[in-house]
Amino acid sequence: MNKSTKDYDDLLSEFLEFKEEKLELDLTRGKPSPEQLDLSNCLDGILDGNFQLRNGADARNYGGILGIPEARELGAEILGSRPKNTMVGGNSSLNLMYHFVASKVKTWGEGSKFICLTPGYDRHFTICEYFGISMLSIPLTNSGPDMEKIEKEVRADQSIKGIWCVPKYSNPTGHTYSDEVVKRIAALPKIAADDFFVFWDNAYVVHDLQSNEDKLYNFSRATENQGTSDSGLVFASTSKITFAGAGISFLSTGEKTLSDFEKYLSMQMIGFDKVNQLRHVKLLKNLEETKKLMAKHQKVLKPKFDLVLATLENKLGNSKVAQWTLPKGGYFISLDTLPGLAKRTVQLALELGVRLTPAGATFPYGKDPNDSNIRIAPSYPQLEELRKAVNVLGTCILLAKAESDNREG
Amino acid sequence: MNKSTKDYDDLLSEFLEFKEEKLELDLTRGKPSPEQLDLSNCLDGILDGNFQLRNGADARNYGGILGIPEARELGAEILGSRPKNTMVGGNSSLNLMYHFVASKVKTWGEGSKFICLTPGYDRHFTICEYFGISMLSIPLTNSGPDMEKIEKEVRADQSIKGIWCVPKYSNPTGHTYSDEVVKRIAALPKIAADDFFVFWDNAYVVHDLQSNEDKLYNFSRATENQGTSDSGLVFASTSKITFAGAGISFLSTGEKTLSDFEKYLSMQMIGFDKVNQLRHVKLLKNLEETKKLMAKHQKVLKPKFDLVLATLENKLGNSKVAQWTLPKGGYFISLDTLPGLAKRTVQLALELGVRLTPAGATFPYGKDPNDSNIRIAPSYPQLEELRKAVNVLGTCILLAKAESDNREG
Repeated sequence: MNKSTKDYDDLLSEFLEFKEEKLELDLTRGKPSPEQLDLSNCLDGILDGNFQLRNGADARNYGGILGIPEARELGAEILGSRPKNTMVGGNSSLNLMYHFVASKVKTWGEGSKFICLTPGYDRHFTICEYFGISMLSIPLTNSGPDMEKIEKEVRADQSIKGIWCVPKYSNPTGHTYSDEVVKRIAALPKIAADDFFVFWDNAYVVHDLQSNEDKLYNFSRATENQGTSDSGLVFASTSKITFAGAGISFLSTGEKTLSDFEKYLSMQMIGFDKVNQLRHVKLLKNLEETKKLMAKHQKVLKPKFDLVLATLENKLGNSKVAQWTLPKGGYFISLDTLPGLAKRTVQLALELGVRLTPAGATFPYGKDPNDSNIRIAPSYPQLEELRKAVNVLGTCILLAKAESDNREG
Repeated sequence: MNKSTKDYDDLLSEFLEFKEEKLELDLTRGKPSPEQLDLSNCLDGILDGNFQLRNGADARNYGGILGIPEARELGAEILGSRPKNTMVGGNSSLNLMYHFVASKVKTWGEGSKFICLTPGYDRHFTICEYFGISMLSIPLTNSGPDMEKIEKEVRADQSIKGIWCVPKYSNPTGHTYSDEVVKRIAALPKIAADDFFVFWDNAYVVHDLQSNEDKLYNFSRATENQGTSDSGLVFASTSKITFAGAGISFLSTGEKTLSDFEKYLSMQMIGFDKVNQLRHVKLLKNLEETKKLMAKHQKVLKPKFDLVLATLENKLGNSKVAQWTLPKGGYFISLDTLPGLAKRTVQLALELGVRLTPAGATFPYGKDPNDSNIRIAPSYPQLEELRKAVNVLGTCILLAKAESDNREG
């Protein structure tokens, strides 16, 4: 009996022991936990019967696609932009991104392409897929995307109309783009097609896990410096600040692009929910107060990330079958197995009742060329569940490796 | 000096007197008044810290495109449908209509057409215009649309993919379709193109102005009887029940169509605001309680409609230059001037500071072939403002007629 077979037998026993526990654990999505949501419970009732805006308008009535002025100010401060450049939407910044693509897809025409940094956010890729926009994968390195490759591509190919970026605590790797990279991305529209846009999804703008947080260079300022404001689209939402399904969203861009987008949206709606915008202004007030709330989130989230990292280290630290990121913020830990093990790992975990984001989901068309990336979302489960789930994950990775060794051996 | 010239001089004096008043009045949109919005102020805070759904799920977190079960029940009861056939959206049923069209427009292909009943709701027509769907105008009579003409058209032309209907207290005429018409519309999908849909915008489903309200035959039941449920799309919202800009919306249809639409929406969003859905369930509870709230709206609205009608009668009753509808519910009074006077009337009123919905807006492409229809929205202004605004409107109609007589005379 060689070592690999022995490992396999031990791992299979471990696997079967877990199976008897009939687990039901879910690490698929970056959902805030009930404890986090409780932090904003005062949102409901915060208006205390006062629905009047600063300008005298009534938040309860129709009208105003760009949002209430006080919420535009709040969004602008969070995004590092200006109120006149900022609109406030409904409960989903993803929905604003979708609509922006929808508003341009006709003029982009057939055969248009987007650059997708990988691994990345599956819902960005789904939008491209829905509209028939081809996706060009470019790997994300520790300091952000490979800018030389990107610049070469957009210069050479005028059918490239956009790029998806999650610049701070990138989903799923947790990386933050360097100042140099931010500035070069802000300059991209100058060498790209005229109707090229940077989708700057600053989803984790205030979502730090440590006090020595990553600093992201101000992209709105960078585009202003480059004269490319109208090609930069900066998004964020309060989904992971207040209520995940009942927050508000922000978009900052150049004034012409904002005005065009307002016209487009006015075809399909009379306005977003202004009462909920006003609630958020009352609760979050400004960037400083928002950061105070985020510090409370940090207290809940940090132990969960620490537990996942410690469990991974304990379980896989000596195995060389996987490596993972050590994010300073955001909602995910990105783990890479040796090539060819991710799909099998996720399948094995599912057999044990532990649901993971489908392997490949972090790549365009759901296809990870190395079949190695697994996204871990530590936020929702309680600590003990999380410990169990990551132990299961570790066993499944090792078992997948042993299976593979057996086949090859 | 003939009679007409004398009339003209008198009317011009009246006009100039109004001008000195420097009015600022707005009859353009069916906006609820602050008094009406006050009726639902308790919405904010109504959850009292309890965000848990009946099934144990958390309204604050992500997920659930079709809406929370208790809100689907409420919507189904209001629409006369079943919970499994009903979804709950965000603050705009118009937005659901837009998305439904967007979800089908590719498969409908180039050259598709919709039947538009006229006069009708401008925002329906705008959706068609945006997507390049041709509009075929068919006049609305007192008992609803001319069914024979419609049946002939949809049978003969497979490129007709939809029809817009506001079946109860139609915008702007206030007419309600007869039982016979409802049943024939439910049967339309059987003779129309396979991918034909009836857009049944039941915007004023509980919006009665009198106790002897119009009764609308149940369209969902009619489509069930005809086996056409999947081709019927029944919409409503609480925009004119609770808060105009911060309510929830409903769509009932066949199970297959609902499931397809859910898949389509899942490309662009994670779910609508479920916290606000829960608030509405707590406030409105069921159809009976909703009707009690609507009785309070009626008390505010009825005197406004009565005042407009009395003022029109007083001002124009003997003149034969205009006729108008006497709606038993809804938000509008539809006025028809003699042909060729509507645009000029609206322009004259604007010169006096009274804003009306642009003439022609109630027709596809904004073009009223007779230039005669004017939509009056009595809900927002206070009574004295309303009296003044309708007096101005009357003067402007008469002046427009006198100008026209002078040109011809």
